[in-house]
Amino acid sequence: MKKFRRSSRLVEMTQYLLERPHVLIPLTVFAEKYNSAKSSISEDLAIIKEVFETEGNGELHTLAGAAGGVKYIPKLSRSSALDIIGSICTQLSQPERVLPGGYLYLSDVLGQPAILHAIGRMFASVFADLKADVVMTVETKGIPIAHAIASYLNLPVVIVRRDHQVTEGSAVSINYVSGSSKRIHTMSLARRALEANAKVLIVDDFMRAGGTIRGMMDLLQEFQATVLGVGVFVESGEIEPAEQLVHEYISLAKISGIDPKNRQIAVQPGNYFTISGSH
Amino acid sequence: MKKFRRSSRLVEMTQYLLERPHVLIPLTVFAEKYNSAKSSISEDLAIIKEVFETEGNGELHTLAGAAGGVKYIPKLSRSSALDIIGSICTQLSQPERVLPGGYLYLSDVLGQPAILHAIGRMFASVFADLKADVVMTVETKGIPIAHAIASYLNLPVVIVRRDHQVTEGSAVSINYVSGSSKRIHTMSLARRALEANAKVLIVDDFMRAGGTIRGMMDLLQEFQATVLGVGVFVESGEIEPAEQLVHEYISLAKISGIDPKNRQIAVQPGNYFTISGSH
Repeated sequence: MKKFRRSSRLVEMTQYLLERPHVLIPLTVFAEKYNSAKSSISEDLAIIKEVFETEGNGELHTLAGAAGGVKYIPKLSRSSALDIIGSICTQLSQPERVLPGGYLYLSDVLGQPAILHAIGRMFASVFADLKADVVMTVETKGIPIAHAIASYLNLPVVIVRRDHQVTEGSAVSINYVSGSSKRIHTMSLARRALEANAKVLIVDDFMRAGGTIRGMMDLLQEFQATVLGVGVFVESGEIEPAEQLVHEYISLAKISGIDPKNRQIAVQPGNYFTISGSH
Repeated sequence: MKKFRRSSRLVEMTQYLLERPHVLIPLTVFAEKYNSAKSSISEDLAIIKEVFETEGNGELHTLAGAAGGVKYIPKLSRSSALDIIGSICTQLSQPERVLPGGYLYLSDVLGQPAILHAIGRMFASVFADLKADVVMTVETKGIPIAHAIASYLNLPVVIVRRDHQVTEGSAVSINYVSGSSKRIHTMSLARRALEANAKVLIVDDFMRAGGTIRGMMDLLQEFQATVLGVGVFVESGEIEPAEQLVHEYISLAKISGIDPKNRQIAVQPGNYFTISGSH
């Protein structure tokens, strides 16, 4: 059997761990894979742990004992997060983003892999310890965000549809009122999409009054599911507190004002950076 | 300035490269970051290259000269791809997936991060040399696939909408006829979503006659864009050749028959595994 040199082992183990966030890997997996003593594997992991944690890019948790092993928890350091959100806020305040009706064009930002990876890492940092079962969003622009987060948490994604689709099988539909336009909309979720008593993280790209997220929460009641956390990429700060339908959430950026006439947009970092936590 | 030991450098460089697929990184970046001679960095890269290429998980291209550097090209070996598609085919042939009308429930498969990463790597392997500018899909179930592929190619994603949305600004809309149901549908793309003369990869979750993909191709003509490749996760083999609207495409799986009465589904690997190529 081929014996791996430490240098090759380090490269391969780094890659192996990065591809399996939140998965407990018994040390015997590495020991057998590389035909090495567990003590050597432990030394390798100590080196990887030090590099990951010095950079703030993630933690390596080692669990001792028979059921033990090592688990990679992706994180993003507060300083990296602030750097990235600074550059996102600059992009979001470009005047040409203002659309008729005071809407903001976000699709290009949500199409960039580097931004999505950063969004995913940020939310994965704060949601890391919640032990959720799934990440849920509603079509369309929330989908890339949900997948970015789910990828770093190693969780499946569940997508709520605006209409009942033939490709979803039997579904539960609800009506909800969007807080800002006061119009009635429908959303539906396939019966088989969620197991009973699922623990759910709800995420979306944009939240004004929170009617869509409130709708997802109501829909989840039909599935006896529990909401463990709510995350939005951008929140609108132009809502009166009395109109707000969702009170506990984490936002990465906040639009404090859009002036459609002069095409000016005021954007600042969201409550992610003021809520205290381990990140 | 801190001097990095080789072992720490290897872990950090591996992580750095994996996060930046298809990006040319000058050796000076690493030499300065780690306060090391270029010759040491070259030796590190040789070790990383050997591990990546032995596992079939990617290639490390080294370009010599003043504009030179190193570039990580994610790949998936043919044997890993066959393993994964085998397990996907098993999942797809579960009888409970058959929906009224002969549709197939796919949403849970497309919600799993590990499957999406594998799909992304497979298409990124065959599309690696095409020098595309963007990956395009139409909402809804194509979105996670497009982002998985784009993430490994380091390209932005452009999403075609079924209706014209207020959050997209001015848009180009077209009507298209779905090949199987012969019904007329609308799709639209924001004017600002694509630059002129863009080179585009079109991807989607499912293709029957190819009407939706044909629609995207027609829509791209309005943007003076060129289609470099078409990829679908699952194709239906139940279409007469004369009805087929798209002839050049790559599929990962092929459904050769659905028997709704007995709930039997015949699934096999797609033409990805028979088309000759570098993968």
